[in-house]
Amino acid sequence: MTTYREAGVDVDAAEELLRRIKPLVRETFTPGVLTDIGAFGAFFEPDFSGYRHPVLVSSVDGVGTKLKVAFLMQRHDTVGQDLVNHCVNDIAVCGARPLFFLDYLAAGRLRPDVAEQIVRGFAVACQENGCALIGGETAEMPDFYAADEYDLAGMIVGVVERDAILDGRRVQAGDVLIGLPSTGLHTNGYSLARKVLLERFSVQDRPPELGGQSVGEALLAVHRSYLRPIRALIEADCVHALVHVTGGGIPGNMVRVVPEGLRFEVDYDAWERPPIFRLIQELGEVPEDDMRRTFNLGIGLIAIVPADQKTVALQRLEALGERPIEIGRIGAA
Amino acid sequence: MTTYREAGVDVDAAEELLRRIKPLVRETFTPGVLTDIGAFGAFFEPDFSGYRHPVLVSSVDGVGTKLKVAFLMQRHDTVGQDLVNHCVNDIAVCGARPLFFLDYLAAGRLRPDVAEQIVRGFAVACQENGCALIGGETAEMPDFYAADEYDLAGMIVGVVERDAILDGRRVQAGDVLIGLPSTGLHTNGYSLARKVLLERFSVQDRPPELGGQSVGEALLAVHRSYLRPIRALIEADCVHALVHVTGGGIPGNMVRVVPEGLRFEVDYDAWERPPIFRLIQELGEVPEDDMRRTFNLGIGLIAIVPADQKTVALQRLEALGERPIEIGRIGAA
Repeated sequence: MTTYREAGVDVDAAEELLRRIKPLVRETFTPGVLTDIGAFGAFFEPDFSGYRHPVLVSSVDGVGTKLKVAFLMQRHDTVGQDLVNHCVNDIAVCGARPLFFLDYLAAGRLRPDVAEQIVRGFAVACQENGCALIGGETAEMPDFYAADEYDLAGMIVGVVERDAILDGRRVQAGDVLIGLPSTGLHTNGYSLARKVLLERFSVQDRPPELGGQSVGEALLAVHRSYLRPIRALIEADCVHALVHVTGGGIPGNMVRVVPEGLRFEVDYDAWERPPIFRLIQELGEVPEDDMRRTFNLGIGLIAIVPADQKTVALQRLEALGERPIEIGRIGAA
Repeated sequence: MTTYREAGVDVDAAEELLRRIKPLVRETFTPGVLTDIGAFGAFFEPDFSGYRHPVLVSSVDGVGTKLKVAFLMQRHDTVGQDLVNHCVNDIAVCGARPLFFLDYLAAGRLRPDVAEQIVRGFAVACQENGCALIGGETAEMPDFYAADEYDLAGMIVGVVERDAILDGRRVQAGDVLIGLPSTGLHTNGYSLARKVLLERFSVQDRPPELGGQSVGEALLAVHRSYLRPIRALIEADCVHALVHVTGGGIPGNMVRVVPEGLRFEVDYDAWERPPIFRLIQELGEVPEDDMRRTFNLGIGLIAIVPADQKTVALQRLEALGERPIEIGRIGAA
């Protein structure tokens, strides 16, 4: 006799998880949320009263192999933040405000304690960004994932006024590139970073180059949200375009907004690279070009601002406690 | 010297994939889509002119271990359809029309030919449902997935007028349950089905019970979309609630819409179960209760209709070529 439970599906774990995450999720609810989790769909009534032509901006992403570091560290409350913040940044650079987020969690074995930590990460970051966590799917897939492993995906939906969409159209020669520091690798370059570092160190090791941090701590640093500084720049009307530095590094992402006929010049000596990047490059003898096309190298967001607004932009950012750095300019091709 | 490519990331494959899928994706674009793939976010300008209080309805889902059957069959163009149709059904039963869909594809190795087939499935189903495929994320995660394996997640956003949201509020004693046939297991119960069937058969085997179909073909039958019959019932104003029969079977999903004080009575002899379910039950000696709580058993959608509208509802469905079956009723608890 073959029963459902014998087929490896842990119904009790799913119910316990739901019990644990309901209060976490509810804390993220914004006025637009119409329903609790549990229905077939999740309901959000947006307040578009301030918009003439509201445009929905959405993005989907994963955490990639940064998850492997979380598994090694047995720390599961940060990867959800990584994912939400990554998604928030991706739509915020388009000028959008986040409305809601949904997650997908697939695990080899559904451990309610681990899943609760993951969802706590989603909830913390959603709250910080004023974004409702309105839905999710949790799948137990024992033949796909190792027992204590999982994969995550997240989807965000935000809104922007059509005329306020930020892309490359406003970028012009003479514009200045202002970088904002990243907190570490964010969520990109982990295949290379793990190959170089984890063949030589355990995650607990504290090589002197990291100034007291362990390898695992440095690698697991939370991908930060740039929503506040982005909104400040947009509200001060002093930004032509914004670039979230993710896979592909600075060059791979700058090309998304720099129109034909223009080029970007980045002075890679304008800022000090965080120790984790120097360690990876030295130990792995990674060519400089690979470093630039793989990692953010310490700059997670780039604001492209008109030259005559540079001072205003810097002041706005500094007023928020940011440490903006002028890292280059837009030139004629 | 460690380079990006040596770390296992196949940049060429990602570029080739993008080249292959762009035309597929573009075919799904509806008038609301504002941009092509490639930006940080995807833009959709909804036409809410017919709505007084538009509510966004969203859902996220995966395909679960049905993917293992696709791997065994080396057939990758149906699982994307499964996922889109599952998501469409989940929001359609709330009264929503689909607007756009985003996908997440994570693979052990990024094979552009396989990924193209998967995305083709997304595109085919998106087109069939009038839903734009506006974004996606493709991740190569060699340490997570076997080389030729992958996982998929999908997120859908639709819209419904606030007063037209369908949930359990209108359900009342005396309402009739009308079932619409499923095409097979849809996307649920594969852990149990695979355990029972694939220990005894290969996917190529054609046990006589399946009347010519192979085990793999029967298991891989595409999860159908119920959008057209659902819209017909809603437009005829002859439905109190709708139930998408997914994980948990008929009882596990009926409870989502049957209010306290009422109960549902299902006559499980009212329809003939498709051969695949009988085969699983017989070979696995699966208890009847486990069958009911795991599989749709041949009924993928249930419309809860007022008794005096039953004839109208049946006529509307039959006019679309559907084969509706009266399978039970709502009673007082």
